[in-house]
Parts: sequence; structure tokens; C-alpha cells
Amino acid sequence: MERRPLLHIRGSINTDEFLDDSVKVSPDCGKVLSAKYESLDYDVCENSLLLEEERRRGYPYILRMGISRWLVMCIIGAATALVACVIDISIDQLTTLKYRVLKKFTDQCILENCLVTPFLLWASFNVCFVIIAAICGSCVEPVAAGSGIPQVKCYLNGVKIPRVVRIKTLLAKAVGVTFSVAGGLAVGKEGPMVHSGAVIAAGVSQGKSTSLKQDIGIFEYFREDREKRDFVSGGAAAGVAAAFGAPVGGVLFSLEEGASFWNQSLTWRIFFGSMVSVFVLNLVLSAYHGQPGQLAYAGLLNFGKFDTLNYDWLELPIFLCMGGIGGLLGAFFNQLNYKLSKFRMRHIGHRAWMQVMEAMIVAATTATAGFIMIYTIDDCRPIGQDPNKFSIQMFCGDGEYNTLGALWFQTPEASVRSFFHDPPGSHHPVSVMSFFIVYFLLAIWTYGLGIPSGLFIPGLLTGAAWGRLVGMGLSAAFPTAAWVDPGKYALVGAGAMLGGIVRMTLSLTVILIEATGNISFGLPLMITLITAKWVGDYFNEGIYDMQIGLAGVPILAWEAPPLSRTIYAPQVMSHPVITFSPVEKVRNIVNVLKTEVHNGFPVVEHSSCDSEELGRSCGRLRGLILRSQLITLLQQRAFNEEPALLSRHIAMKNFRASYPRYPSIREVELKEEDMEHTIDLRPYMNPSPYSIQHNTSLPRIYLLFRGLGLRHLVVVSDSNQVVGVVTRKDLARFRAGHHRGQSGTEELLISERV
Amino acid sequence: MERRPLLHIRGSINTDEFLDDSVKVSPDCGKVLSAKYESLDYDVCENSLLLEEERRRGYPYILRMGISRWLVMCIIGAATALVACVIDISIDQLTTLKYRVLKKFTDQCILENCLVTPFLLWASFNVCFVIIAAICGSCVEPVAAGSGIPQVKCYLNGVKIPRVVRIKTLLAKAVGVTFSVAGGLAVGKEGPMVHSGAVIAAGVSQGKSTSLKQDIGIFEYFREDREKRDFVSGGAAAGVAAAFGAPVGGVLFSLEEGASFWNQSLTWRIFFGSMVSVFVLNLVLSAYHGQPGQLAYAGLLNFGKFDTLNYDWLELPIFLCMGGIGGLLGAFFNQLNYKLSKFRMRHIGHRAWMQVMEAMIVAATTATAGFIMIYTIDDCRPIGQDPNKFSIQMFCGDGEYNTLGALWFQTPEASVRSFFHDPPGSHHPVSVMSFFIVYFLLAIWTYGLGIPSGLFIPGLLTGAAWGRLVGMGLSAAFPTAAWVDPGKYALVGAGAMLGGIVRMTLSLTVILIEATGNISFGLPLMITLITAKWVGDYFNEGIYDMQIGLAGVPILAWEAPPLSRTIYAPQVMSHPVITFSPVEKVRNIVNVLKTEVHNGFPVVEHSSCDSEELGRSCGRLRGLILRSQLITLLQQRAFNEEPALLSRHIAMKNFRASYPRYPSIREVELKEEDMEHTIDLRPYMNPSPYSIQHNTSLPRIYLLFRGLGLRHLVVVSDSNQVVGVVTRKDLARFRAGHHRGQSGTEELLISERV
Repeated sequence: MERRPLLHIRGSINTDEFLDDSVKVSPDCGKVLSAKYESLDYDVCENSLLLEEERRRGYPYILRMGISRWLVMCIIGAATALVACVIDISIDQLTTLKYRVLKKFTDQCILENCLVTPFLLWASFNVCFVIIAAICGSCVEPVAAGSGIPQVKCYLNGVKIPRVVRIKTLLAKAVGVTFSVAGGLAVGKEGPMVHSGAVIAAGVSQGKSTSLKQDIGIFEYFREDREKRDFVSGGAAAGVAAAFGAPVGGVLFSLEEGASFWNQSLTWRIFFGSMVSVFVLNLVLSAYHGQPGQLAYAGLLNFGKFDTLNYDWLELPIFLCMGGIGGLLGAFFNQLNYKLSKFRMRHIGHRAWMQVMEAMIVAATTATAGFIMIYTIDDCRPIGQDPNKFSIQMFCGDGEYNTLGALWFQTPEASVRSFFHDPPGSHHPVSVMSFFIVYFLLAIWTYGLGIPSGLFIPGLLTGAAWGRLVGMGLSAAFPTAAWVDPGKYALVGAGAMLGGIVRMTLSLTVILIEATGNISFGLPLMITLITAKWVGDYFNEGIYDMQIGLAGVPILAWEAPPLSRTIYAPQVMSHPVITFSPVEKVRNIVNVLKTEVHNGFPVVEHSSCDSEELGRSCGRLRGLILRSQLITLLQQRAFNEEPALLSRHIAMKNFRASYPRYPSIREVELKEEDMEHTIDLRPYMNPSPYSIQHNTSLPRIYLLFRGLGLRHLVVVSDSNQVVGVVTRKDLARFRAGHHRGQSGTEELLISERV
Repeated sequence: MERRPLLHIRGSINTDEFLDDSVKVSPDCGKVLSAKYESLDYDVCENSLLLEEERRRGYPYILRMGISRWLVMCIIGAATALVACVIDISIDQLTTLKYRVLKKFTDQCILENCLVTPFLLWASFNVCFVIIAAICGSCVEPVAAGSGIPQVKCYLNGVKIPRVVRIKTLLAKAVGVTFSVAGGLAVGKEGPMVHSGAVIAAGVSQGKSTSLKQDIGIFEYFREDREKRDFVSGGAAAGVAAAFGAPVGGVLFSLEEGASFWNQSLTWRIFFGSMVSVFVLNLVLSAYHGQPGQLAYAGLLNFGKFDTLNYDWLELPIFLCMGGIGGLLGAFFNQLNYKLSKFRMRHIGHRAWMQVMEAMIVAATTATAGFIMIYTIDDCRPIGQDPNKFSIQMFCGDGEYNTLGALWFQTPEASVRSFFHDPPGSHHPVSVMSFFIVYFLLAIWTYGLGIPSGLFIPGLLTGAAWGRLVGMGLSAAFPTAAWVDPGKYALVGAGAMLGGIVRMTLSLTVILIEATGNISFGLPLMITLITAKWVGDYFNEGIYDMQIGLAGVPILAWEAPPLSRTIYAPQVMSHPVITFSPVEKVRNIVNVLKTEVHNGFPVVEHSSCDSEELGRSCGRLRGLILRSQLITLLQQRAFNEEPALLSRHIAMKNFRASYPRYPSIREVELKEEDMEHTIDLRPYMNPSPYSIQHNTSLPRIYLLFRGLGLRHLVVVSDSNQVVGVVTRKDLARFRAGHHRGQSGTEELLISERV
């Protein structure tokens, strides 16, 4: 029965001790769970304080909370949109400046034969911008690096990743992503918007910021994990909505990541927030682009208007094949990126200066690669076909422009639009092919750098490149067919590639449908994405799941692994359990909190200890008390012996006051005589925690955790004596083994060393 | 502590006894729950037979099941689309025939002054068609009457409504809706498609039909409530998708109604089914309309192409007001329909001939009203503006047509399109106004008749009428404004009206967005719908919830009522509990099954009976056994004394064989000597049923039921002795009181007499 892994230590660990650690991928290759991640607590502690508060406040309070929730969601949507606008406008200004200068020097130097000058200029622009981005993502706030989608996924799944929803993270993210896009790297600004939305939601809903030491005192009743999670899912949805102009896609994104806590009114509220976000973004960006009130800019990423996006049903096999190619390329992308991440963890680690160095090298390489391509490939087209602002002539004849120059001298979003909408014959196959290969490799190298960076744009752009190639091939093969449109194939390729990398399902389809603004093209996109996902899943996981696995985050899958019904609670749970008596001595409490890392402690009555029970501890379950509650009680001196206790009222607001950052036990000042006092835990503990019998199987435990958002599940014996506690990490150890034929379940280790 | 209502009887009742009863609304005004509805059982019974089967079959079996699920969903999507096509084409043929004849006679009689002939012809067409529809919905299968959406909602919520997913119901529904639409009633064919999809899903996924006595023997492993529910939600989504050309809306519809069991791969599968449904429908209908391979017919309901659906943000207040009007009108609609439903229950009841009579009267009245309007209102417009096929001249000049004739001589879907797309000035305000009033009243009268009938079209059509009026008013007020387009306001009005009636939220918005094919108009639609819902909710419930309440279905809301944390398990549960011993005498089992109506029985060990326990029964919880399992065991003669038991193997397939219609205990043949035998229940019972402590509060019980899809929840004492059982009906009694100020929870009665 005892199959505990060597490194396994009991249960959940207090984050206080780990705040200095940065969240980085682990060198143990995704087979070890880190002990340092806390779970969020979605269970309501129905103690007598809560009941009293509810009784006192009554129905008007419930009504007020309902209205506040809508109000907060509206603010979240608007604020997310504004942040998106600031990022977008800054990038627009910076890139316009950069490419204007570059174009001027290139056009001039091509005559004066000083092409080294624009090259050096380009490289220095990139490197300078990227240094700022790398400082944001490596030194200022390491959790702001990357796209942020894995972190938001983990949060919605119920894992508290330190510092992921702080104001400082938002600032680092916003500034960083602006400069990494402006720095010409193969990154996008869309993924980071999801993270930004989540941070904004967490901040707005709490009505205070611990970092800024501001507490405006409103929305105090939203200061609990459960309410905060609802708002964060709304913020993430608003972020997706702003990024892609996709309010429905935003709702579905949050849904895919957190469906276990879904309910109707929350869905509707999230949709409202997403709509507000799209509306505000549209209003501001339309005004910025000189069309106030026109609402022509639906999202940050605009695919442009597809008017003639029809398909014949005979094309479906082609889309199927393209989905397959996308899956293969995506799996290849993920595999290379995985190897690179492991290499990085081993040789770069957490050293910020090395991260900055690497980012600088990538920035310089990107500029070099671009310049070499523009210099060596002479793909000339007549001016006038392409709407590019900074097209350069290079070695082309008068009245012509260099197509590679046009692709490189614009933001990647604009390049995606070029592949989608440029008329047939705008590019030579060789230039598209070389662009694809170079950009694909650059994107692999770039994702994982210590800079805020999105993955959607590189995925879409490389996909659009090879999709366009497919379209050009089909045009050559069937020159008279009406349905051949290279732009359409570029769109399908973009979807296939992105689907092959991220393996998102419903939400990605809807996001792409909304971004193209064409509903009738849904089926082709879906067929492509589903094929890409299946083909890719045959080889490895999606890149976000890979990153989560590398970081050792104890994320819970949707279901228990197959064939795990023969794994029972005693194999899953942690034991022996540290318990408290209903009336406990302060010394005991302090000692336990100082020496143990657990966060939840069953409260038991030692009435009739039955020696036949499993485990060493015994006593009938009376309730569950959390570390944060105990610390608050100690701080509030809720001692039975305290003469002032009867007159002083300990209420829910005392427990909410320090949320979410409770002091560590070492910060609580207690005198030696306090140690002999006692605390009556009964009014404060959760009197009816969810518990299971020891013969419960893993799938049933899993269902309880996912369905109810639990943090602790008490395992009791046949006579209701506590024998163990199951936490998220105990459960996350069991996961479906990949490609293992018969055996469906593999067991991970839990380590503090990740 | 004991607050049990007078009429309350214990727990869940076996449906076998109630199969002859038809599902009709109750005369007790929505304040009583009917005892006759069973719950579905979504909990997996992890007994040793299941474990053995899993071990034997291993991983390849899980893989095969995964592939089968996709295959089945594909078939469901295609089959739903085909049924939709058959209905659509039949309606098209019947109405073309009807209106061609009517037009011929009208045009002829206007010259020969014999207008009574076309009127009588019209009335007889309608009455004849409606008689067929009424026979389908009243005599053949009463559960096929109405839109079916309330029934599907209940099913997805976990209530088994007798005969709701049978083949006979599908046939009655399909034939009935064809003839009720062709009969010119104020009904649509869209709502019934949701029900049709659900029936198809239930049928296809089981690979057998009990009604048709066919068992093709495949998909045997999907024969359980849990798997069936997943497919039914897919079928409902495919139905929505086919009806509105809205695959995403379909997924969201299923999600809104059943989110508690959602997971990622299921969502994706449902989306796939919906896409297949839309694709097949499109393929068939395009071919039928002479454009094979063009994919121009996305759904049954086609709003037509909106090319210029723009809005200025200054219009948002107008949309807000229109939402308010929609909410008011919707609440008025629901209130009148509610009164009418109660009147019907009292004076018509279940008498099929009276239902047919009423439907005939409505059909004749509809024709009369239409004829009077065409006859009296002379609204003439020049021919050529309106694409109507059967426009009539009536008293108009040559080269003109009667606009009311055009509105009435087509299907309601086509009339909706007329309001959306007819150029400004196509109608006179008086004709639109009178059409609105007449159609509104007819729609109220029609919904609730004993015919299959959808509510979407009447809602959209009346809304489009008053929306168009608003648009005409605005055109008159701001004749130079570019944004005034009567068609746009007709669309907003249609959304507001429908939203005010059905109060669906996210899914309805997305359905309308997909049906218009215009994503940028999402925000106005959403603002309209949300206002309509809020305004409407102030007065009463949505019409589907009203019907469910009238029928006394024990549906579970999303959350426990507010302020219900002080209601504890003993107030909720049913007790005393009938229990069995692990090894039980056959006589006891048979007696209990014959005299009790319960469906689940805790298995307890009478070891140390403690007299201080609550309730009369005592003994430690060992497991839970279902009525259906006991009946199978008796049928299989799984007696300990049976000499053949050791050699004969009782396996899961024996339990699945009779699913979902197990014989009644009276149909099991047992000899008198069998009565003295015993059965060992331990290998067959669920060894770890979910249980709660008796001090658990209502919100926690609620969360368990909704989150896990439970049917029985065992309440145990502090020493794990069984003290009660909570079933869905016990829980559904507690619901949020409407408009009651302070008191948030009201308690319903449970009655067998509903």
C-alpha cells in the first residue's frame, strides 16, 4: 500500500518562505512537482463568524454585492482595454520611428553604398529596445517573462503562483512587451494581454494594493480566493477579447481553463466584461487612428477584412492535410523549444545578466538575419500592390520594392496581414520559404527568453508563410480553379501552425473566427485545428502545458488518469496528520506553525481512540482550521484567558484584513506567558469540511477536487477518525502517462528543490 | 428542526409506475414539486464488477471508447441535420402548395367578388394541417408538445422526464412541427430542433431502441446515464446549430444548461458535432435550393445577409431603451401565457380531444385574423421591392401589392427577413402596428397548445415588427441621419423581444450574432439582451422556467438560495432510511422494493447501534445499492444458496442489459423458496458513496449535488452511522424566494398529485 516516492514531503507548503524564489522551469524535466506552489482556497469556511455576519447584513447586502460584481467587471474590462491601448499605441510610435529611420538610411545608403550603416542602426535599435524588455522580464519581475498564459492557466486551475497578479508584474509586463515587440523580436503582444487582464482584475476587485500600500476600502467583501478567482477569469477573458477583438473567444478561453467553477451568472458577467473591453479598445484605437466613433479597430490583432472567404467542400481534404502539417511543425517547435528550455535552465538559470545577454544576442541575430535576407534575395514587385508604409527599394528597379524588405520593415502583425491579403503573385516562393525557415527558428529561440513575449503572432506568422506557399503551389497546379486564393490558405496555415503549438481547442477556433470576422469559415478552421491538435498530441504536449510541467506546477488535469480506480485514498493522502484539539494551547499552535509547512489542520476530538485505525493520529473529525486563520487568531490575541476577549469582538473583517499576504508565524509577536494560554478554535474553524472514507478511489477524489475547488480533503476512517489529508499536490502526482500502452497512470515526485 | 411539509413523501420514486401518466403542467401554480420525476444517476458505481471489467479490458478499451465517442458525435450531428432538412423541406413544399393555391384563388376572387372562397380555403388548410399536428402532440405523444427546450433543460439538469428521449417522441415532434408551421400558426420550427437533436443523440449513442426492439449491439458501453447525458448535450447543441446555423451558440446553449459536468474534451466533441450538423445541413439545403456545393444555407433560420450593420456609439442608449421595452413586453407575454396555462390545466387538462379542438380553433382564428387584416388594411407598395413569392394584389392598383398579404402569405421566418431587409418605406406604420398586436396575441395563445411548436420565431417576429416601427419613427425624427436603418432596429427589437421572453443569456447573444453573420454588432445585441433580461426578471421568470415550475419538475438552480447557510442536513434529508445489510434476505429485499418507492438504499453494518443517534435506523455506512441493481440481482438469481452461482458469472453486462428501462419488481418471477435465500450485496453495491456529516449546510449539499451530478447523498452521524438520505427532490424544495425582501429561501411542497 505504501508507494510514497522518496522525495515526497507532506502536503502544502507555506509560500512565505519562498517569496524570494523566482518561478523558473525545473531541471528535472517535467517529472517532478515543485513543493513550493500553494493552492488557492475556493471552499467557503462556514464558521459562526460568517453566519453571524450574514444574519446581520441580510438580503440588501447580497443585492449590493451582486451589483458590485457587475460594476467591478465593467471596470476590469475598461481598464484592460486601456492598458492594451497604451501598449498598442506605444508600439506603434516606437516602430514607426524605428522603421522610418531605417528606411531613410537604407534608401540613402543603397545609392551611397553604405549599407553597413542601416544594418548597424537596425541591430542597435533592436538591442537597445530588447535590453529594456529583458530588464523588465529578468531583473524587475521574473514572473512577467514569457506570455503569461501558463501562469493564468495555473491560477484558474487553482494554483497560487507567487507574485503573478501583482501591480509590479503588470508594469513589467506592459513595458517589457512594448519593447520586445518594438525590438523586432519574433514575439507578439497578444498573449501578455491575457496576463495583464488577470492582474488588473485581481487589483481592481480587491480595492487595494499591498504593493502600493493603498486601500480605498471598497469591495472589501471580495477579499477571498473564491471571489478573486471569478474576477481573474473575467480579466483573462477581457484580455483575450482586447487582444483579438474576440469577446466570445475570451469567455471560452476562461471556460476552457477553469470550467469547474462555472455558473450561468458568472459566464454572463464575464461576457459583459469582455464586451466592454472590446468596445473601449475599439473606441480609443479608432480615435487614435483618426476615425473617432467609427469602431473600426476591434482588437489589437486585426486580420483585416476577408470579403471572399468561401470554400468548396472538396477543399476539406486539403485543410485536413494542412492541419496535419501544422501539427507536425508544432510538435517540432515544441520539442526544440523544450530542449532549449532545459538547456537554458542548466546553463543560464536565474542569473539575470545572462538572461539579458541572451536576449541581446537574439535581438542582434534577428536584425542580422533580416538584413541578410533583404540583401541577398532580390524579390521585386511593382509598388502599389502592398499597403506597407516603409517598403524599401534595395536593388530593385525604380517603381518597384523589395518584398522581403516589406515583410521585415513592419510589425509581425502587419506581416500576417500581408500574407492574408496581398494579392496573388505578391511574393516569390523562395522569399516566402526562406522567411518561414528563418522566422520559425528565431521564434523557437525567442520563446522562453527572459522577456515578456507572446507566442500567438510568431505561430500565426510562420503558419501564414507556409500556408501562403501551399496556396501558391495550388494556384500553380490548378490555375483556373476559382477557389484557389493564397490568402485563404495563409489563414488556414496560420491556424494550423498556432493550433499545433498551443493545442487550444474551442477557444482558439472561436478566436480565429472572431478575428477574421467571418463565421462561415468556421468549419475549415475547426477541421484544421482539430487535426493539428491530434497530430501534435501524438508527439508531445502543447507548449503551455510543457512549460507548466517544466516548472513542476501541481496542476490538476480534467479527469483522473485512466485505469486508476484501484488507487485508493491511503495511497494518495499524506499522513500522519498534525491535528489540533478544539481548545488548543497557544504553545502547541505556535510550535506546529513554526516547524510544519502545512496550511490546513484538522481539528479532532480525542474521545475514543481506536488503536486499530490507520495511521498514528486519531480522534473524530470536528473541523478544519487554516494556517492563515491561526495566525490571525494569534495576532488578535483570541485567548480564552485574555480578559478583554469577551468585550472585544473578533469578526470576519479581522480575517480579511491581511488577505492575501498573511504574516509568517515568525512575525507574530507573542510573550512567553501567552504561550500557556489556550484558544477555542470552534467558532473560527470550518465545522463541516469535505471528508471522504479511506476506501475512496482516486477518480472520486479527483472529481471532488475539480468539482468543488478544494484545497484540503480530510480522509477519515470507518468511525470518522482522521487518518490523512489529501492536498492538490498529493493528487497532481498521479497523471496520465503518455504513450505507455497498457499502463495509464504515472506517479511524479514532489520536491522542494525545483 | 422538523419543518417537513404536509405533503412530503420520502425521496425518489420509481418511474415504472408512472409511465402511463403524461407530463403536463400542474394546477398547483408552481409552488409544488411533483414526486413523479426521477433523477438521472451520474455517479459511477465503482463496484468490484466494474473494476474487474476495467482490469480485463485495459488501455486499448479506453482508446476504443475515446474514438467511438467522436464517431458517435459525428453521426449525431449528421443525423440531426438530416432530420432538420426533412422538416425544412417538407414545410417548404407544404407552404408553397398552400400559398400558391391561396394566391390563385385570391387573385381570381378579387375580380369575381368571391373572397369568401379563399378565406374558407385558408382556414381549412390551416385547420387540417393543425389537426395532424395536434394529434401528434396530444394523442400520439404528449411530451412532444411545446418547444421541448424545457424538457431538454430538465434532462441536462439531471431530471429524467419520462419518454422525453424516445424515438416515438422524435417522430411525433418532427411530423407535428412540420404541420403546425405549415398550418400557419404563430410557431417556429427552431425550438423543436433542440429536442430532436437530444432524442437522436440518446438513440444513436445507445446503439439500440427499446421501442423498435432493435439492438445492433454496438456502443454497449455507453449505456449509462452519464455517457448518455454527454451525448444528449451534444445532440441539443447540434440541434441549436442546425436551427440557427450557430455552432458556437449551440455549444454555449448546452453549456448554460448543464455546465456542472463540463470538461474540455467533451466541449470540443460537442463543438465538433455542432459543426458537422451545420455542414451537413448546409450541404443538403444548398443542393435542395439548386446551389449544390455552395454552402449558402447555414441554418434553418436564416436572417439574410446584413451588409451594412454598423452602429454609432450614440445609438447605445436607444438600444438600451429597446431592451427595456423588450423586457416589459416579454414579461407581459409570459404573464398572460402563465395565466392561460393555468386556465388550460384547469379546464382542458389531459383530454386529448379538447386539446385538438383548441388547436383547431386557434388555427381558424389565425386565418381569420390574417384575412381580416389583408381585407381591411389597404397598404399598397409597388411590386419589385419585396422578394415575396406569393404577394397578392387585393384592392391595390395594378403593379402594386398588398404588404399585409405579403406578410401573411409566407412562413414566419420569411416575414422576419422581410422586416429585417425590406428597404425603408416598404410598410405603413399602421399595418406593422396591427400586425404586431395581432401576432403578439396569437403567439401568446398558441404557445402551450398541445402541438409541437417553437417560440423563437414568434418572439423574433413580433420583436422585429415593433423594432421596425421604432426604426420608422427614428427615420421620421432624424431624416438625414446616416445611421437610421429600419432593418437594424427590427433586428434589435427581435433580440429584445425574444430575450424578454426566454431570458437566455450568453447563448442567445451568440446565436443571434451567428445568425446575422455579423460579429461587430455583438455589443448592441448584448446590451439589448441584458437589459431585456434584467427588466423582465424584475417581473417574472423566463417562459421556460415558468413551464418547468408549473410542471413541478425538481430542477436544481445554479446555487443554493441566498442566506440558507443556517439550514442543515437534518432539515433537508429524508428519514428514517430504509437500509439493507451487506448480506440480505431475498424476502426483505422483495418486500422493501414492493412497498417502498425509493431508488437507492444505503447498505449498513449493524455493529454497534448507538441509541443517541438521530433517527431510528442505525448502523455504519458500507455502501449504496440501487433499485435497478437489486432487480437485476433478483432476475439473475444471484443467491448465495444457488448452486450455480459460483460457476455463473454475473458481470457488468447483465446490469447494462435492461438499461434504461428496468422491469418493475412485480415483473420479476420468484418462487416462494427463493424468498428464504440471501444475496451478498457487497460485490455489487457502490462501496464508497458520497456522504456528508449531519451538520453540513444546504449550500454545501447543493454544491455537491450540482458539482458531482448526484442522485443520492447519504447523511451520516458523527460515528458514520446512516441517519438520512438527501435526494434531488429534497434539495429542489429549497429555492430562492422571488421579491421577498429579507427572506431569501422559500420551501416548496412535494406532492404525488401533480
